[in-house]
Amino acid sequence: MITQDRKNSTRQTIAEVREFLGDRLSTSMAVREQHGKDQTWAAGAPPDAVAFVEDTVEVQKIVKICAKHQTPIIAYGTGTSLEGHITAPFGGITVDTSKMNRILAVNAADLDARVEAGVTRKALNVHLRDQGLFFPIDPGADASLGGMAATRASGTNAVRYGTMRENVMSLTAVMANGEIVRTGTRAKKSSAGYDLTRLLVGSEGTLGIITEVGLKLYGIPEAMTAGVCCFPSIEAACNVAIDTIQLGIPVARIELVDEEHIKAINAYSKLELKVAPTLFLEFHGTAAYAREQIESFREIAEGHGVGAFEWAEREEDRQKLWQARHDAFWATRAIAPGKQDVFATDVCVPISRLAECVTATQEDLRSNSLYGPIIGHVGDGNFHVVLFCDPADAAEVGRVKGFYERLIHRAIAMDGTCTGEHGVGSGKIKFMEAEHGKGLAVMRQIKHALDPLNIMNPGKILAL
Amino acid sequence: MITQDRKNSTRQTIAEVREFLGDRLSTSMAVREQHGKDQTWAAGAPPDAVAFVEDTVEVQKIVKICAKHQTPIIAYGTGTSLEGHITAPFGGITVDTSKMNRILAVNAADLDARVEAGVTRKALNVHLRDQGLFFPIDPGADASLGGMAATRASGTNAVRYGTMRENVMSLTAVMANGEIVRTGTRAKKSSAGYDLTRLLVGSEGTLGIITEVGLKLYGIPEAMTAGVCCFPSIEAACNVAIDTIQLGIPVARIELVDEEHIKAINAYSKLELKVAPTLFLEFHGTAAYAREQIESFREIAEGHGVGAFEWAEREEDRQKLWQARHDAFWATRAIAPGKQDVFATDVCVPISRLAECVTATQEDLRSNSLYGPIIGHVGDGNFHVVLFCDPADAAEVGRVKGFYERLIHRAIAMDGTCTGEHGVGSGKIKFMEAEHGKGLAVMRQIKHALDPLNIMNPGKILAL
Repeated sequence: MITQDRKNSTRQTIAEVREFLGDRLSTSMAVREQHGKDQTWAAGAPPDAVAFVEDTVEVQKIVKICAKHQTPIIAYGTGTSLEGHITAPFGGITVDTSKMNRILAVNAADLDARVEAGVTRKALNVHLRDQGLFFPIDPGADASLGGMAATRASGTNAVRYGTMRENVMSLTAVMANGEIVRTGTRAKKSSAGYDLTRLLVGSEGTLGIITEVGLKLYGIPEAMTAGVCCFPSIEAACNVAIDTIQLGIPVARIELVDEEHIKAINAYSKLELKVAPTLFLEFHGTAAYAREQIESFREIAEGHGVGAFEWAEREEDRQKLWQARHDAFWATRAIAPGKQDVFATDVCVPISRLAECVTATQEDLRSNSLYGPIIGHVGDGNFHVVLFCDPADAAEVGRVKGFYERLIHRAIAMDGTCTGEHGVGSGKIKFMEAEHGKGLAVMRQIKHALDPLNIMNPGKILAL
Repeated sequence: MITQDRKNSTRQTIAEVREFLGDRLSTSMAVREQHGKDQTWAAGAPPDAVAFVEDTVEVQKIVKICAKHQTPIIAYGTGTSLEGHITAPFGGITVDTSKMNRILAVNAADLDARVEAGVTRKALNVHLRDQGLFFPIDPGADASLGGMAATRASGTNAVRYGTMRENVMSLTAVMANGEIVRTGTRAKKSSAGYDLTRLLVGSEGTLGIITEVGLKLYGIPEAMTAGVCCFPSIEAACNVAIDTIQLGIPVARIELVDEEHIKAINAYSKLELKVAPTLFLEFHGTAAYAREQIESFREIAEGHGVGAFEWAEREEDRQKLWQARHDAFWATRAIAPGKQDVFATDVCVPISRLAECVTATQEDLRSNSLYGPIIGHVGDGNFHVVLFCDPADAAEVGRVKGFYERLIHRAIAMDGTCTGEHGVGSGKIKFMEAEHGKGLAVMRQIKHALDPLNIMNPGKILAL
């Protein structure tokens, strides 16, 4: 029987891994369950064991053992992904990289660094601060840089600094056959063959397990000024973002927060923001240039009926403002009484279509009596809807599911994508064909070629 | 006999392609030879026929016929690549995309465009100018955008705007099995699966033939100021570049030109530049910000013994300056009497190693009595050596070959790459293992999976 065979082979895998990991291999149910469930809508599935690895060679050994017994292997950073990336629907070994938290090199002259996969973005930034450097990519959570690379993460700074796609220079990864591959170099550019770095970035552990990441760094700007302003409509706020980008103002952050979200933020973060479509902004540069950007922005905003501006120049005010923005997800959770099932989804469209997409989405929410605050990285055309429902209310669950499907097809129909930054995981597999068409077959060919046994995070990105 | 079989199958391919292309399929020796040879050191090899295609569906038909008869198929844009990308060592059909020269869409609000593969960068920029937009990537030649995508081209603006890697948003490509795949969307970012766009960018026609390219555009800056200044040493010039990047000055171009190259440029372009290590610069921004950048740069340069600055603010002066820089390759050809074999190669290293790499390279040239002017995209750590030799002088040819190998291994040893922008083609295959190690096997797995018959530009990037 296959099930019995699988149990036996998994038992064998666990025994062999335990030989060299000892008690760093856990089979406790609490640990397994914690590693098999994220913030997703769907129920998680625990792996059979969790390996707390300390270096690339340990990962290699585990992959070779898993390959021998055809045991699934799932990479785990901080477990903060949102589309079921880390669940173990076919069991297997989860490789937890949190102990791989060494910063291996910081090259200030070249503005680059190399870190182990388990280093978190905040830990890296604390380490860099004294050297006047920072790493800008900031998904909501304090995610690990290996996980951020694996999921092609981005965040509020992407409009200015790009996503992990643009900011990972090189990787070390253990491939499905157990080979350790180092992609890329420290050169800023290369035309030497296939871009394996970019292939692994966003592959969600389905092609290999990332164990080290080479990253671009940036000098901390002389001036960083944050601000908030509100608009009479979502459309006005979106048009301001379009004009800002088109004029080449290198805005560092431009975040759209809708009325519902403002209410939640006010309650959660003890703020008194006006309840209206709002832009959270940040400008980086020399002092003079940041001022110039602000003036240019103000002129654009005034053409679209902006309300009063509030600026935060002091570091602590700026941090408070952005903490409120980053807490938005938790804020909405806190004010939705009786709605235990909460999940955030995201889509991304060309910014010329953003106002239309957000407005249609709000209308869809209203006409289905759903509560779904919207927050957007508006400079990128990327926005999130936080969806709530009472799992006991089957009708509501059905309305949420219908809304979710329409949202994604609306974005794809506007030449956008089913996810700007949350990834595919297991949650968005069903939309891949609508988005990629024949490209999906190419992805499958690559997956089959690099992981013929389908042991690398099976059941994610592609339904094989 | 295999050879006879191949001849027969090629004849069959040609007959079937001619059925629908008519006289747009050429078998004239002049056309074939012109399509089989670039600026490379190595002798070219003509294809068996050249197909002047007009749309993606024609390319699809040709690929399907080639697949049926296992005939090689080579994509051709403007033939300006430099590493033997377009030669046909195993014969086959060259697909010339120059008639696919339609600009399909320009979306000013989203700063993007979609073009057919044969549109050249200059043609696109002429088209965009009235809308106040431009596309910045500028390899020396007026290359086709399909070719630039296929070779991951860059140029003088890459320090500010990135390379084709960062500026291609989406692609249409015909894969080896004849499927038409559209990768990417018009969304600025996505985390929806494997990054097929970045996999095809730089794949040099070995995985598929690019027929359409979606590109990022930029607003033409309010101010663009170019300048020239010289330094007492290569090291001083490199250090100025490092400090400029580190300080976050968003220099649009920063090009290092060595003494030998300055002599050549002076002679060819009728200029009177001082013969010394020189930086060609350009700053983009608002008028005030461009001035501020210049002042910050001047301060850095003065700390490193800069000579007098010459600035060009008027468009015609700026164009003249950059034309001289772009003509550098031709300039060196013109002043090397009796050296008919000329080829340009490039490497790229972390900028902290650039001065050391360039200085060691100059020393290597001197101690081997070779003439090799150096020019560099110094903000990226990328530089070119133009190498000359007299093909009748076997000893000199040997010295050039030895120098060339040392140059590349020097760059790789400095955690750099064997090519920053010229690509692999057939010329740099032998260095791929030194640079990529086990990654090379991954590239081979991908190639085998996507092109199992090895009909797509065989003999390039990978020696199978």
